[in-house]
Amino acid sequence: MEQLKSRIATDGRVLPGNILKVSSFLNHQIDIDLLDAMGEEFARLFSDQKITKIVTIESSGIAVACSAARAFHVPVVFCKKNRSSNVPEDVYSSVIHSYTHGTDNTVIVSKEFISKDDSILIIDDFLANGAALEGLVSMLRQAGATVVGAGIAIEKGFQDGGKRLRKAGLRIESLAIIESMSPETGVVFLN
Amino acid sequence: MEQLKSRIATDGRVLPGNILKVSSFLNHQIDIDLLDAMGEEFARLFSDQKITKIVTIESSGIAVACSAARAFHVPVVFCKKNRSSNVPEDVYSSVIHSYTHGTDNTVIVSKEFISKDDSILIIDDFLANGAALEGLVSMLRQAGATVVGAGIAIEKGFQDGGKRLRKAGLRIESLAIIESMSPETGVVFLN
Repeated sequence: MEQLKSRIATDGRVLPGNILKVSSFLNHQIDIDLLDAMGEEFARLFSDQKITKIVTIESSGIAVACSAARAFHVPVVFCKKNRSSNVPEDVYSSVIHSYTHGTDNTVIVSKEFISKDDSILIIDDFLANGAALEGLVSMLRQAGATVVGAGIAIEKGFQDGGKRLRKAGLRIESLAIIESMSPETGVVFLN
Repeated sequence: MEQLKSRIATDGRVLPGNILKVSSFLNHQIDIDLLDAMGEEFARLFSDQKITKIVTIESSGIAVACSAARAFHVPVVFCKKNRSSNVPEDVYSSVIHSYTHGTDNTVIVSKEFISKDDSILIIDDFLANGAALEGLVSMLRQAGATVVGAGIAIEKGFQDGGKRLRKAGLRIESLAIIESMSPETGVVFLN
């Protein structure tokens, strides 16, 4: 998606350690017009599918998921990080390893909001090693729901998450796929 | 706001301990049409003010803040809970006590995104004892920004946050103010 890629090129900042900061428009400060355009683009890409629900994880996926939900005219469900030491009985859960923070997080979603009749599009801001996306897919399948695919804002194409999950049969549409990046050369896109 | 109050009456669940669950439409599963209507209502209520930015705290404020930002045509900034043991230098911060979890959270916002030229509307899903709102106001004032007011989805009018902060001069507009609630009688609104 040209609009997103040109915004990354202009306002994104590449830091050492393959970190791309897009906090001025995507995941700390949010440009709503850009997000709504991204939502429309996801709706176009998945227009061949019947989608009943958008699912994301707190926090940085929520805004883009809401824009997508508006374009699809369906509800959003955002999965939560479990903060208590016990996992309640009325939720589905999945353990997701964070490579950024070196921790395991249990992510939960209330059983009330996901059913076997749902056809779900997962939306997230980033895809890198794929741990979060994999955990979400596994959790939604526990509920018997159909996962139609994943719509990702920015995919780090040089990490293996996208490749591994596509190989496993998951449809992934990423609006911007980064081939390589460095503080010196900036961002090079694959798509 | 009638639409929100009738939704609370229909789909909200009152649990013991003054807990109101609105997770089927506001803060776990999200009804985007309702949220957009709430965003429009905040724009109407604060139409006498020049607003440059919407500010909220992750996670449950983000969706409603995005709908408000769309109605005002301004960016959203969502403040983050600080997860490291140090507070970085390039942020403003505030310690907020959570009465629900019995913990202190440090909330941060990048100095890049708040300036003395900003006129800010704070948006949040709930107002009860006011600790989160008070912490946000204090943090935004550290930046020299003007806090125009706060737009709240649901105010627990029987707790003292709203009263205390209005007395201190903060303009607060709440779409639904709860006078009392119990599992037996349900929710009684003040407005």
